[in-house]
Amino acid sequence: MAEDNVIYVGDKEPMSYVLAVTTRFNEGSDEVILKARGGAISTAVDAAEITRNRFLTEVDIQDITTKTEELEDEEGGTSNASAISITLRMNK
Amino acid sequence: MAEDNVIYVGDKEPMSYVLAVTTRFNEGSDEVILKARGGAISTAVDAAEITRNRFLTEVDIQDITTKTEELEDEEGGTSNASAISITLRMNK
Repeated sequence: MAEDNVIYVGDKEPMSYVLAVTTRFNEGSDEVILKARGGAISTAVDAAEITRNRFLTEVDIQDITTKTEELEDEEGGTSNASAISITLRMNK
Repeated sequence: MAEDNVIYVGDKEPMSYVLAVTTRFNEGSDEVILKARGGAISTAVDAAEITRNRFLTEVDIQDITTKTEELEDEEGGTSNASAISITLRMNK
């Protein structure tokens, strides 16, 4: 799947990401993936739920996976952050 | 599955829930489910990831589902909140 079907969720409101997802589907994508880390994980779940319940009821959550990513800090040390990947699929 | 295998994740540190999960498995449970709403969703994912990576490497995330719950507020109105359910399973 093309990398431009991935939407990285940060600290904006969930509706910003709902709009981004809806736009990708309306442009013809069959699949859109929301990715988030740390506190933005909750926002990604909100965006997925709002999208399928209120905007694109033909869209389903096909898969949800989590992992731990090692992040390097400014001093060269590392810390761990949880990450989520939510795959949304259009059922035509 | 017995209801006492469900752990509700709130606003404590992830390690509190890691300890709760680890205790359930050590008591003999095959399966433990983490449930969370809203901002606590990120904490639930952290707890699941820390459990399987650092404490119980025989434990896998078997399933992750999300839904939207309608909550009633004090004035009788309703608001929506996203919720997550993470099923952890011991591979013996």
